[in-house]
Amino acid sequence: MQPQYQMGYDRAITVFSPDGRLYQVEYAREAVKRGTTAVGIKCSEGVILLVDKRVSSRLLEPSSIEKIYKIDEHIGVASSGLVGDARLLVDRARVEAQINRVTYDESIDVESLAKKICDHMQVYTQFGGARPYGTALLIAGISEGEVRLFETDPSGTLLEYKATGIGIGRPAAMKIFEEEYDPAMTISGAVHLGLKALHAATEGKFDVGTVEIGVIETQNPVFRKMEPAEVKAFVDEVEFSPSETGADQGE
Amino acid sequence: MQPQYQMGYDRAITVFSPDGRLYQVEYAREAVKRGTTAVGIKCSEGVILLVDKRVSSRLLEPSSIEKIYKIDEHIGVASSGLVGDARLLVDRARVEAQINRVTYDESIDVESLAKKICDHMQVYTQFGGARPYGTALLIAGISEGEVRLFETDPSGTLLEYKATGIGIGRPAAMKIFEEEYDPAMTISGAVHLGLKALHAATEGKFDVGTVEIGVIETQNPVFRKMEPAEVKAFVDEVEFSPSETGADQGE
Amino acid sequence: MQPQYQMGYDRAITVFSPDGRLYQVEYAREAVKRGTTAVGIKCSEGVILLVDKRVSSRLLEPSSIEKIYKIDEHIGVASSGLVGDARLLVDRARVEAQINRVTYDESIDVESLAKKICDHMQVYTQFGGARPYGTALLIAGISEGEVRLFETDPSGTLLEYKATGIGIGRPAAMKIFEEEYDPAMTISGAVHLGLKALHAATEGKFDVGTVEIGVIETQNPVFRKMEPAEVKAFVDEVEFSPSETGADQGE
Amino acid sequence: MQPQYQMGYDRAITVFSPDGRLYQVEYAREAVKRGTTAVGIKCSEGVILLVDKRVSSRLLEPSSIEKIYKIDEHIGVASSGLVGDARLLVDRARVEAQINRVTYDESIDVESLAKKICDHMQVYTQFGGARPYGTALLIAGISEGEVRLFETDPSGTLLEYKATGIGIGRPAAMKIFEEEYDPAMTISGAVHLGLKALHAATEGKFDVGTVEIGVIETQNPVFRKMEPAEVKAFVDEVEFSPSETGADQGE
Amino acid sequence: MQPQYQMGYDRAITVFSPDGRLYQVEYAREAVKRGTTAVGIKCSEGVILLVDKRVSSRLLEPSSIEKIYKIDEHIGVASSGLVGDARLLVDRARVEAQINRVTYDESIDVESLAKKICDHMQVYTQFGGARPYGTALLIAGISEGEVRLFETDPSGTLLEYKATGIGIGRPAAMKIFEEEYDPAMTISGAVHLGLKALHAATEGKFDVGTVEIGVIETQNPVFRKMEPAEVKAFVDEVEFSPSETGADQGE
Amino acid sequence: MQPQYQMGYDRAITVFSPDGRLYQVEYAREAVKRGTTAVGIKCSEGVILLVDKRVSSRLLEPSSIEKIYKIDEHIGVASSGLVGDARLLVDRARVEAQINRVTYDESIDVESLAKKICDHMQVYTQFGGARPYGTALLIAGISEGEVRLFETDPSGTLLEYKATGIGIGRPAAMKIFEEEYDPAMTISGAVHLGLKALHAATEGKFDVGTVEIGVIETQNPVFRKMEPAEVKAFVDEVEFSPSETGADQGE
Amino acid sequence: MQPQYQMGYDRAITVFSPDGRLYQVEYAREAVKRGTTAVGIKCSEGVILLVDKRVSSRLLEPSSIEKIYKIDEHIGVASSGLVGDARLLVDRARVEAQINRVTYDESIDVESLAKKICDHMQVYTQFGGARPYGTALLIAGISEGEVRLFETDPSGTLLEYKATGIGIGRPAAMKIFEEEYDPAMTISGAVHLGLKALHAATEGKFDVGTVEIGVIETQNPVFRKMEPAEVKAFVDEVEFSPSETGADQGE
Repeated sequence: MQPQYQMGYDRAITVFSPDGRLYQVEYAREAVKRGTTAVGIKCSEGVILLVDKRVSSRLLEPSSIEKIYKIDEHIGVASSGLVGDARLLVDRARVEAQINRVTYDESIDVESLAKKICDHMQVYTQFGGARPYGTALLIAGISEGEVRLFETDPSGTLLEYKATGIGIGRPAAMKIFEEEYDPAMTISGAVHLGLKALHAATEGKFDVGTVEIGVIETQNPVFRKMEPAEVKAFVDEVEFSPSETGADQGE
Repeated sequence: MQPQYQMGYDRAITVFSPDGRLYQVEYAREAVKRGTTAVGIKCSEGVILLVDKRVSSRLLEPSSIEKIYKIDEHIGVASSGLVGDARLLVDRARVEAQINRVTYDESIDVESLAKKICDHMQVYTQFGGARPYGTALLIAGISEGEVRLFETDPSGTLLEYKATGIGIGRPAAMKIFEEEYDPAMTISGAVHLGLKALHAATEGKFDVGTVEIGVIETQNPVFRKMEPAEVKAFVDEVEFSPSETGADQGE
Repeated sequence: MQPQYQMGYDRAITVFSPDGRLYQVEYAREAVKRGTTAVGIKCSEGVILLVDKRVSSRLLEPSSIEKIYKIDEHIGVASSGLVGDARLLVDRARVEAQINRVTYDESIDVESLAKKICDHMQVYTQFGGARPYGTALLIAGISEGEVRLFETDPSGTLLEYKATGIGIGRPAAMKIFEEEYDPAMTISGAVHLGLKALHAATEGKFDVGTVEIGVIETQNPVFRKMEPAEVKAFVDEVEFSPSETGADQGE
Repeated sequence: MQPQYQMGYDRAITVFSPDGRLYQVEYAREAVKRGTTAVGIKCSEGVILLVDKRVSSRLLEPSSIEKIYKIDEHIGVASSGLVGDARLLVDRARVEAQINRVTYDESIDVESLAKKICDHMQVYTQFGGARPYGTALLIAGISEGEVRLFETDPSGTLLEYKATGIGIGRPAAMKIFEEEYDPAMTISGAVHLGLKALHAATEGKFDVGTVEIGVIETQNPVFRKMEPAEVKAFVDEVEFSPSETGADQGE
Repeated sequence: MQPQYQMGYDRAITVFSPDGRLYQVEYAREAVKRGTTAVGIKCSEGVILLVDKRVSSRLLEPSSIEKIYKIDEHIGVASSGLVGDARLLVDRARVEAQINRVTYDESIDVESLAKKICDHMQVYTQFGGARPYGTALLIAGISEGEVRLFETDPSGTLLEYKATGIGIGRPAAMKIFEEEYDPAMTISGAVHLGLKALHAATEGKFDVGTVEIGVIETQNPVFRKMEPAEVKAFVDEVEFSPSETGADQGE
Repeated sequence: MQPQYQMGYDRAITVFSPDGRLYQVEYAREAVKRGTTAVGIKCSEGVILLVDKRVSSRLLEPSSIEKIYKIDEHIGVASSGLVGDARLLVDRARVEAQINRVTYDESIDVESLAKKICDHMQVYTQFGGARPYGTALLIAGISEGEVRLFETDPSGTLLEYKATGIGIGRPAAMKIFEEEYDPAMTISGAVHLGLKALHAATEGKFDVGTVEIGVIETQNPVFRKMEPAEVKAFVDEVEFSPSETGADQGE
Repeated sequence: MQPQYQMGYDRAITVFSPDGRLYQVEYAREAVKRGTTAVGIKCSEGVILLVDKRVSSRLLEPSSIEKIYKIDEHIGVASSGLVGDARLLVDRARVEAQINRVTYDESIDVESLAKKICDHMQVYTQFGGARPYGTALLIAGISEGEVRLFETDPSGTLLEYKATGIGIGRPAAMKIFEEEYDPAMTISGAVHLGLKALHAATEGKFDVGTVEIGVIETQNPVFRKMEPAEVKAFVDEVEFSPSETGADQGE
């Protein structure tokens, strides 16, 4: 799926290729495809985000590999791709949320926030002097009782999913979701499905200790990261069969 | 129809080719030709916009693939091409409409709005540092009782049509319109014709569930998107014969 | 007449070729040569502008292909070349005319306006970061009783003609004018000559329905576009012989 | 005399060649050498400027080919090279003259004005982002009783001549002047010499009807363009022998 | 591990390679890999930083090779890579710390400071006109009783470690830490481990006289550089066996 | 002495060559070497500047070839190289001198002025977007009784000489000075030596009529250009032997 | 030691090479290596700076070849490399010193000043649009009784030495210092050592008349340049043996 050398049409964001493609945006998507896997799942009780933090050394503090961020009381985000880019977008999202609170004295609508982030990302696909963001975000939240789960990509495209994944394991995770997703799941069921997807996305090299889970429930629409113990309890409940391991996530 | 490598005259918007062409604008048009199909049809009772949203996965929320946008009470827009670019143009159109309301205390003329959008798009074909917009718009509305349907393209050209299409299925749709368009049609007749065009544009791979229809009627000049049920009722009325499938939309 | 690949001297407006030419300006002129034909003719009673709008589809609203524009009470313009560029120049001309009215409380002199437009176009032939305008204009008007007809081109050169043409059919039209132009013609005679020139310019593929005519008369120095009926009356009067068809307009 | 391809040292005004030349300035001079011929001659009674306007078509209004411009009461200018560039320099010269009047309540010194124009032209030979002016000027005037005749070129060099020429016919004209110039000539004698030079410069293809003459006399130091009749009277007086035709102006 | 020539995708920070990499950032990391070794170690009593200053000549004043900097009362930094870049980042860190004191009347949180530095470094990986920082930092400090040890790199990535190293000897140092690190160590034990790591990192070419040690203890959370005598005492305690010498730090 | 094509290191002022040279500055020096010869000589009574104006045509007014300029009462300048550049530097020098008068109510020190000019020239050797000045200056003057003679070059280097030359004839002139210069000379002796140097510099093609001489004497420290008669008197006194003609000035 | 052509990684300061080097900075160092030799030596009584001014002609005023500059009462600087660049840095240093006096009413610390200069130089190694400084400085001074001797280079690196050299003769000078430097030397001994080093650096082509010496003593911490007589006295004391001539300074 990796594009070939494209006769120079791929060297600048301000240049279309003869077939109307923006190669630099496509290359930025490749940076996302090299990132750690993150998945998001809507369910009957709310929406969850799961990431596998891929901690490579026992000397690393797992808490410092932040892949799930709280944006506002009712919104959380998971990222994949360039870490520094993600941090910038998260900061921007937090500021936008605060501006909304200060200006209108109410929390920002999840979709409005997602659009603002995407508009910002689009600018980096049209103007020279900078590169596109090499990061994708899953934006999960609840506005006026409605559960939302958006996915952005480096082009500034915004789509809403019932369940989706970003990063290196996206193909494996999506295969699981296409087959097994059920909107009637509880939070617990969604977490089980998400862990299964992450397990498939990592070809079974699943490290329980570094899964991070974010959740927001309709009952109590406040986004929170689960405590390690809570995560561990879920992980212990799941049994992974060898057949659940995806084989095509290496793209 | 795809241009070949052009000795470097095609790398920047600020460079004419020896035969007076702006290749980057032509390449941006290719981005539109790769987009989803949208059609617009004027009729005796008003004007309609139809798009096929091409929902590729059951996990995707179809509502998030927005291709028809309400700009102001009396104006709607359908887009094809780069999604992020379209969103930007739509935002700009909405702001222009609001500025007109605030400044003159009346709704903006459909043609004035279309020209403002085109002037903005033209700038990106003359100045360096950015790329042209990779998007086309159908702008439909009613001003002072007159039904209008404009089409823009990345060069900033503005044309008014009785019926037209943009995106990958434009050739197939135009063939249908050339043969069957009748200005005396009712809204209902226009929707039937539009569905037929979309059906041809997709080579029969028509997904009823993801057609989106926008409409504004002379009787009640307020642009609205039809409810899914309303759309479904229309779709159920139409029968598609195999012979109506266009074969040349792949250009 | 089309220039060949010029060793890179033709890639930027800020670069002279070794023989002192600005290739980008010459390439912009090629964009004009690819445009629709427009002609202007001075006569004893005033000055007229004629364009052939080349409407390619019955679905297109001919009124939306604007090639003749009223600039001020006493000035009209016909354009050929890039449509978006022409619209920008026309807007600029209208603003200049209004500024003159507001500042000096009188209508702008036709030549002053033409020079302002040309000065603006010249800037795009000397400074980098943008391309020259790919459009030519015929500027017709009456100031202090004097009938004026100017032609601009992408270099910002300004010339006044008794009769002239721009666009793809210029050579054929000029051949007609060189042979048959007579300054003593009436408006009616000028229109006949203009139609003959357009007919030759289109190699006989003349579409009566899409000719647009602008006129300003010394008697009543107000520029106006003729009504379709008025145009049709003129067209019906003219008989086109095959020999009047130009054969060299393809340059 | 035309420079060859220079290994890329000739692509930007900000780059010296290894032998210390600025090729872009030299190429701009080539643009002047392709221009129409203009000559200037000081004499005992004042100074004159003559140009051959090379009117190529009977449809063209000769008055619109302006090559001699009045700058201020006491200063006139003749140009050769890019027409749009000349118009800009002339506008600048007029503004400088007016600024002097307003600021010091007296007319600008001819040499001061010429230096200001040259300083402006020099900037375009040192800074990137623009090209040099492709035009040369002859600046003629009288300050404090002294007759002045300056020549500028694209490099911003300023020289004063007794008699000189610019444009395609410069070599032929200079040959005439070197042989026949006499500072004791009257205006009438100077015009005769100038016409002879123009005749040589055009290889005998001399068109009497399109010669334009500007003059300023010490007696009445007001620059004026001669009326066509006045010009014709002079032309009628001169007899051109074949041997006076220059043969080397094609450089 | 050194990347090869990459078809031009590696010449600008604003260009992604086809596989989504930013080569200029990776090359900046190579500048860090060529730097002197610095290590940081958290322990039960606080956190330490050690650097080997590689003094190449007896004529050099060792004190002028600054590799450990005090940022604020409670924060210190060790650097590796381009010296001038490090000094700039250190200055920036000091200013950020002061701004926090002045604005909130309290000392800056270690993690907040580290993020601010990383955000600054990220900007140089996204915008053209400058190069990324060719430096890495170890940021050690204590906020609200918590011991922190962060590592930044040219991409603006921020990670927290229990023990880590930067510069040419990182691989050798990390091998020691993976095998022998124990969070229960005292400051004294940590210094011993750090010296062992530096010894391995320099392939035994260890110069006791130029080791610099920074320390901050939980008991008295003030960052300080150890006096030479204090350093010497530690060094004298350690015995280096040949087998502890790393052999792969040359990468 | 002319540098060869240098693998592209010579195309921009912002690029050093691998051996630490700035080729664009060296090429600018070549522009000076192509200029007319100017010499400056300090003597017991003051300092003089001489230039050979190389008047190429009897039609040229020699007075317009200005190569010696008065900057302030006590300072004069001779230039060689690009004429337009010299005029700019001279204007700048005059303004600096006036600023000093206005600010401190005293005349500017010769060395201070020379440094200011050089600092200005240096900027054009370090920043992109412009080229270095293609001109050298001899700056002669008297401050507080001290006779000064500075030479600048395109790099912004400033040196003081007892006697020196710039332009095409520098080698020939310097050979004369090395052999014959005597600081005890009178003004008259210095002029004789300068004329001899100019004679050698022009390989004997010496044109008495176009020598220009500037002088400032300790007795009356006011810089002035000598009257033509005064110059002629000096020239008449000198006899040029063939052996004094330099043969190596063609470099 | 001269780098080879580096596949284009060496054309801009904003580009790292694949092995993490900034070639433009290294090339700027080559400019320093081509400069005249300057040495600095700390001793028991203060610190001295010595330069060999390489006066190439008897016509040159040696005083105008300034290589040692007084910055403030207590600080002096010696430079090597591009002369114009050095002058700029010296001016900047003087301004920084004055700013400190005005702002804090005390003289600037030598190290603070050196850092400010280096920070300024670093900027030119990170941002495009300019080149790095092609100059190195030795900064000598006394702050609060402490004798300081810093060396800067084009990268903005700052090191303090007991004795060091810059310019073409650095290797030869450093060899002398490594062998013979003794911190207990008196000023007189230091001057003797410095002269020996310069002698070696010039391969014996030592010109006594153009040595310049700057000195600041702890007793009277005011930087001054020695009078020529004082310098001559020192030079006369030293005897140079052939064996002291370095042979490797040509690098």
